[in-house]
Amino acid sequence: MDFKEILNKKKGLINQALEKYLPERSPYPQSLTEAMRYSLFAGGKRIRPVLCMESCRLFSSDETDVLPCACAMEMIHTYSLIHDDLPCMDDDDFRRGNPTCHKKYGEALALLAGDALLTLAFHLLTKLQSKNAMRVINEVSDLVGGGGLIGGQVADLQGEKEGGDREKSLHYIHLNKTAKLIIASVRSGALIGGAGRTDVLNLTVFAENLGYAFQISDDILDVTGSKEELGKSPGKDKEQDKLTFPSLYGLERSREILCQKINAAVEILKPYGKKAAFLYALTKYVGERKS
Amino acid sequence: MDFKEILNKKKGLINQALEKYLPERSPYPQSLTEAMRYSLFAGGKRIRPVLCMESCRLFSSDETDVLPCACAMEMIHTYSLIHDDLPCMDDDDFRRGNPTCHKKYGEALALLAGDALLTLAFHLLTKLQSKNAMRVINEVSDLVGGGGLIGGQVADLQGEKEGGDREKSLHYIHLNKTAKLIIASVRSGALIGGAGRTDVLNLTVFAENLGYAFQISDDILDVTGSKEELGKSPGKDKEQDKLTFPSLYGLERSREILCQKINAAVEILKPYGKKAAFLYALTKYVGERKS
Repeated sequence: MDFKEILNKKKGLINQALEKYLPERSPYPQSLTEAMRYSLFAGGKRIRPVLCMESCRLFSSDETDVLPCACAMEMIHTYSLIHDDLPCMDDDDFRRGNPTCHKKYGEALALLAGDALLTLAFHLLTKLQSKNAMRVINEVSDLVGGGGLIGGQVADLQGEKEGGDREKSLHYIHLNKTAKLIIASVRSGALIGGAGRTDVLNLTVFAENLGYAFQISDDILDVTGSKEELGKSPGKDKEQDKLTFPSLYGLERSREILCQKINAAVEILKPYGKKAAFLYALTKYVGERKS
Repeated sequence: MDFKEILNKKKGLINQALEKYLPERSPYPQSLTEAMRYSLFAGGKRIRPVLCMESCRLFSSDETDVLPCACAMEMIHTYSLIHDDLPCMDDDDFRRGNPTCHKKYGEALALLAGDALLTLAFHLLTKLQSKNAMRVINEVSDLVGGGGLIGGQVADLQGEKEGGDREKSLHYIHLNKTAKLIIASVRSGALIGGAGRTDVLNLTVFAENLGYAFQISDDILDVTGSKEELGKSPGKDKEQDKLTFPSLYGLERSREILCQKINAAVEILKPYGKKAAFLYALTKYVGERKS
């Protein structure tokens, strides 16, 4: 099987698990379940849960715990997108080619669907059997909180208006808004797999590089991509005067930095040999993706 | 000391702990910390954390774990209020006599401050040393999720417009929107204190009754209270055509039900004797409060 086939197989496993954790007939109010599922099953690339599973697989073949954790990562990602798309935030009407959650269900239900996905993610993490379960919840809640993902969103909003050190701001935003959830996904997987201290540290550096790469390629695609490729309107960053890699360094230099980050990431995977072959291909894919 | 003095002393302990867990100089972006602290220190009654501490004290004198848990309950309460006040939800301009979080800091920052408080609450819970720590996180994330607090908010929004069984809806809303976080506070405290199965069950019934009582008295105060007493405009429920106890049963019958719930709650406390004296007084206070 080639990379895309394996990726699709893994996505299938994740979608099946997500279906189990948030079925159509949940004990939630029907409209809430619908709004949550609308965004959760809107064709996401499932990069974070795949990273979580693959990091685990470097150390263990047992998938009992990693699937719920992988799904929690995707739920946190989805909640952050729903809130980010709201009119008071980035005010986006389309996401992955479809109307955003609030366009479809209204702002109130979208807000609450985001809240409920975040809460369900933590609930899923309490079901981990791993001896590292509490550490995983501790780290995840740190990496996606005010000093992580949410802090990055705050800086992203303010970066639009404020002056100051733009380079420092840009790195803060990309590290927190994007890389930290990728770090959380990779570290959680590794911890559930039973990785030792050094491996967890190495993979954190891998994830940080990959996280930056992911956001830089997003920034580049917003300049160079078409609406068809992206599933949303390109040029939004410039329109909103967002602080991005192309806006600060230009397109060519941004591509160079992207390439450096990808290389730094794959370098760390080498000692893991064949077991990391898929992670290796995934990292390369992030550097070359068109959507 | 009389009841009010003891309550103020306990509130002092909680405020001190909240100050420690979310200090002015946190690692978060400054504006985010400010918005979170603005709502967290806006003069809340601290009923939920006090309930958590007192439930624990029925079984243990060790307060190591219960204070972080009590603070987590207040953070979840505050997040739910910030999101509930947003224009797309209840659209409230005042809370406890002050502008609401979004009126002061804008909608985007208020939304993210709510998200960050919820996330910080789960982070705090991972620091519990109790052998029941994972169970506490499991239960809390269930009680405040789509099948609990958030589900109640969804029903509350929809209850304004929809027909159907209004009595059933009203009970669903009050149980989920209000009682479940009070149940979470009481159960968490009891579990951290080391309560056995029967005690946890009894206190759950206590908390459910108290939770209903709390919301019914809120409903009544919205009809009978003044702006000075409430710190917000009264009559909002009627204006928004909310489903409340007075709107469904009238004021007199609502007062009777409130009285029944308070009596049912205090009845459960009797076997705990002197240790429950403060909880007893607190429950009575909820039945008679003017703000």
